[in-house]
Amino acid sequence: MAVNLAPPRPEDAHPVRGVRLGVAEAGIRKTNRKDLLLFALAENARVAGVFTQNRFCAAPVQVAKEHLAAGMPVRGLLVNTGNANAGTGEDGLRRARAGCSEAARLIGCDPMQMLPFSTGVIMEVLPVDRIIRGLPACVADLHENNWASAAEAIMTTDTIAKASSRRIELGGKPVTLTGIAKGAGMIRPDMATMLAFVACDAAVTQSALQGLVVEAARLSFNRITIDGDTSTNDAFMLIATGAAGSPTIDGPGHPHFARLRDGLIEVSQRLAQAIVRDGEGATKFITVQVEQGRDQVECDRVAYAIAHSPLVKTAFFASDPNLGRILAAVGNAGIADLDVRRVELYLDDVLVARDGGRAASYGEEEGKRVMKKNEITVRVVLARGKAVTTVWTCDLSHDYVTINADYRT
Amino acid sequence: MAVNLAPPRPEDAHPVRGVRLGVAEAGIRKTNRKDLLLFALAENARVAGVFTQNRFCAAPVQVAKEHLAAGMPVRGLLVNTGNANAGTGEDGLRRARAGCSEAARLIGCDPMQMLPFSTGVIMEVLPVDRIIRGLPACVADLHENNWASAAEAIMTTDTIAKASSRRIELGGKPVTLTGIAKGAGMIRPDMATMLAFVACDAAVTQSALQGLVVEAARLSFNRITIDGDTSTNDAFMLIATGAAGSPTIDGPGHPHFARLRDGLIEVSQRLAQAIVRDGEGATKFITVQVEQGRDQVECDRVAYAIAHSPLVKTAFFASDPNLGRILAAVGNAGIADLDVRRVELYLDDVLVARDGGRAASYGEEEGKRVMKKNEITVRVVLARGKAVTTVWTCDLSHDYVTINADYRT
Repeated sequence: MAVNLAPPRPEDAHPVRGVRLGVAEAGIRKTNRKDLLLFALAENARVAGVFTQNRFCAAPVQVAKEHLAAGMPVRGLLVNTGNANAGTGEDGLRRARAGCSEAARLIGCDPMQMLPFSTGVIMEVLPVDRIIRGLPACVADLHENNWASAAEAIMTTDTIAKASSRRIELGGKPVTLTGIAKGAGMIRPDMATMLAFVACDAAVTQSALQGLVVEAARLSFNRITIDGDTSTNDAFMLIATGAAGSPTIDGPGHPHFARLRDGLIEVSQRLAQAIVRDGEGATKFITVQVEQGRDQVECDRVAYAIAHSPLVKTAFFASDPNLGRILAAVGNAGIADLDVRRVELYLDDVLVARDGGRAASYGEEEGKRVMKKNEITVRVVLARGKAVTTVWTCDLSHDYVTINADYRT
Repeated sequence: MAVNLAPPRPEDAHPVRGVRLGVAEAGIRKTNRKDLLLFALAENARVAGVFTQNRFCAAPVQVAKEHLAAGMPVRGLLVNTGNANAGTGEDGLRRARAGCSEAARLIGCDPMQMLPFSTGVIMEVLPVDRIIRGLPACVADLHENNWASAAEAIMTTDTIAKASSRRIELGGKPVTLTGIAKGAGMIRPDMATMLAFVACDAAVTQSALQGLVVEAARLSFNRITIDGDTSTNDAFMLIATGAAGSPTIDGPGHPHFARLRDGLIEVSQRLAQAIVRDGEGATKFITVQVEQGRDQVECDRVAYAIAHSPLVKTAFFASDPNLGRILAAVGNAGIADLDVRRVELYLDDVLVARDGGRAASYGEEEGKRVMKKNEITVRVVLARGKAVTTVWTCDLSHDYVTINADYRT
């Protein structure tokens, strides 16, 4: 029951020259579902990424970072669902590497040029034999026009596949940006969310690409939360194939940098918001905007205190304007010298609280009217400075409990 | 459906000489329920307390702190449920003071000698007229043997009244410690929880009493969490009447200090644990123990990362040994240099994980066996030092969502 989110349309998944995708049903956890995805990249493609900050980061995350650090051009990405290969120790690393080796052999590259990604249950042994048996079907399926199918193959508790695409022009050449993502739960990305892959056919140097992926993550996947839990497997990868023939972008000073960055941020934000719209059990999409903070850190603290409060989230689920809970969350954000008499709270355009309490103009009926909507903006004005932040989140419903209580059954 | 928690028995609520309690049905939010409680203290009683760190702290918290700071001996405490008088600005302060004035007039003391406490809905106007109308009934009801009734009067979403009592001997004199508390939701006390009152008839100086309340809070109410939300109204008050005739305890060096402290900690821990056992929707009582940390701060971080994780909490609700979620929470605790290969995870006495993954000796059946219990200890060994911490929490169930989605209806 995702909030205002439809399955990808053809225009959400334009092919990107230089990126072929192949999908298979490998039976990793369940049968009869797409659970294995292989990206095969053109020879000159560059890849940059950001990964989870969780200290129990999964084996594939460790291997992917190691392979990226080795500096050989990446030629493939291997993604499985159904098993996270996290909390699996040395054995997990061996299994992640075994999958890479076989995929590399099949597409004809070095195993170090293959990056592994996994999502699913934690602390269970990865059935890498099934992955290896499934790989030939992936290879047979490799095609540039396979993004929608790839978006399906990376779903776990997602109810809707997520893809986003945009076409821009750089130096007279049409450039395509297309991305896919999966989310649903254990979502409070610290660098990026598990899993998002965005590719473009622009030409970008490695260092510029790394700068772009960090900035896009900061403004998209790092601005969402569903349940405050950072996954062991988060990864956001950005691919640039150069196949569009557009001029090589070598850094923020390049005349085309801003246009590519804006396109990338737009695609990434759409994917990040899609993850929240399809958050486990989500019935509402909530934008939390904190303004006039002293700095970004305190704005983020307030925004996440609201976005993580189970009491605020259940009030949204119930469409109950029990808005004192939002004030309580603001008071909990750990800003020791916050003067609550200067704080203003708005629900969409309705002023709810000021001068330390309910605004004289506020009526419960107005609160009810806004709370009934399925997209709501909470705006908190701190009146302490000029910093601003935006975080996207969802409500906490019975279905969240049901989904997570029954996840493994 | 509280976890292994019965209503107070007579031995959980021994009277404390010098403390009279009176209860009334004032109709503050609902009719036909006890919602107003007045403590009347003997002339030489001393009172110390700790309060919420929430910046949106409620009007009664502000007034109680102000009255305590003024330094006149406290003669009464006025407690209402049904309305928190929080997020109510200047008007809220006036209403809290008006309640104190009337209660003080009725028992014959200065308004500055009366401390107000409120719990209930946030950001609604306190109907202080109803409190004032209800006060004569409280006064008529004042009696030393009224603790069980007082425990009922402070309940909100609690399903069971909470009281705890202990008798000790100091200098040959019998001393009684009795306390009551209410909790249920918005529970992640930062100084103490809303609301707990513990009284004894020992004689204690003001500074020694303040030291005791801080230490007892640290080891009891500050070690519990239900949903990670710190209330605007938390307060934990400690009363010492001196009516037992025992020697005056003037600080940690006094020969009777340790015995009183131990008794107080025991009573406070029982109340704090009772709050968790009766947490909103709780079906399990979980003890999270973190050992061999470098310092208390990192032990607490790990313990609360586990205790606050919605994924861990829903797994407990489902009795599903999806224990990788606990590892993920440990990895999320923000310890940058944590070596996960040295971490050990135990569920009760069962070793679940070591060397960065599932322990070779661990079998799913053993995990299932422990998860079925309604009292479970999660033990994490960090292997980094000598610090230890314990936190008590509960699971996250459908009933938590139901209770908080329907709270105001």
